[in-house]
Amino acid sequence: MRELEERIRREGRVLGTDVLKVDNFLNHQVDPKLMVALGHEFAMRFADAGVTKVLTVESSGIAPAVFTALDLDVPMVFARKRKSITLSADNYTADVYSFTKQETNHIIVDKRFIQPKDSVLIIDDFLANGQAAQGMMEIITAAGANLVGAGIVIEKTFQKGRQLLNEANVRVESLARIEDFVNGQVVFANED
Amino acid sequence: MRELEERIRREGRVLGTDVLKVDNFLNHQVDPKLMVALGHEFAMRFADAGVTKVLTVESSGIAPAVFTALDLDVPMVFARKRKSITLSADNYTADVYSFTKQETNHIIVDKRFIQPKDSVLIIDDFLANGQAAQGMMEIITAAGANLVGAGIVIEKTFQKGRQLLNEANVRVESLARIEDFVNGQVVFANED
Repeated sequence: MRELEERIRREGRVLGTDVLKVDNFLNHQVDPKLMVALGHEFAMRFADAGVTKVLTVESSGIAPAVFTALDLDVPMVFARKRKSITLSADNYTADVYSFTKQETNHIIVDKRFIQPKDSVLIIDDFLANGQAAQGMMEIITAAGANLVGAGIVIEKTFQKGRQLLNEANVRVESLARIEDFVNGQVVFANED
Repeated sequence: MRELEERIRREGRVLGTDVLKVDNFLNHQVDPKLMVALGHEFAMRFADAGVTKVLTVESSGIAPAVFTALDLDVPMVFARKRKSITLSADNYTADVYSFTKQETNHIIVDKRFIQPKDSVLIIDDFLANGQAAQGMMEIITAAGANLVGAGIVIEKTFQKGRQLLNEANVRVESLARIEDFVNGQVVFANED
């Protein structure tokens, strides 16, 4: 998606060899018009998939997910993160390991909100090692629902998340695919 | 706001004497069309206030805040919650005590995103004891920015948050004002 790539190129900040900060338009300060555009793009790409729920994880996925859900005319559900959980008959839970923070969090979704009849679209801001996506997939599986695919705002193709989703036969639509960071500059996967 | 009150009456669940669960349309599962309506209402009420930034706290404030910001055509900033923080010259921080969880969290905003020239509108899903709002006010004050007011989705008038904001001379616009819970039913402040 050209508009997003330009925004990343202009305003993203590369830290070290594998971190991209996009906190001025995506995950701390948020540009609402860009969120409209992202939501519209995801909705177009999954228009024929029969989506009945959009699922994300708090917090950075919420803005793109809610605009996608608006366009698809379905509810959005955001999984809650918890340091510790009490197992409950009311919730689905999954473990999500964070490589950046080197800690395991749990994500929780109330069973009322993902049901066997649902066709669920995962939306997230980043796909890196795929841990959050995998946690959401576990919850969708536990619910007996159908996973239609994953819409990712920014994918880092050089980390293992994409492979993990491919191996699980999950359709992935990424709006920006980053292949490498060279001298503090972003190299997109579709570039020569 | 009639549409919101009806939704609360129909789908809200009262727990004990002072808890209202609205997790099927506001803060776990989210109804995007309702968020559009809330954002539109806040934007109308603060249309002449010269807002340049909308500020909320992750996670439940994000959806109403981003639609408000869209309507006002300004960026939205969500403060990050942290268990512990390292003081940094790059961030504004404030303590936020949670009465429900009986613990203190810290909220953080990058200094680049709230500047002295900004006129900031606070948006949040609930106003109960006012701790989150107060934390955001501290950050706005520390930034030397102008606080134009607070837009609250659901206010519980019987808790001390409103008084705290009144005493600080903050303009508050609440879209639903709950005065009491009687026999598990919600009593709105504008009812007889």
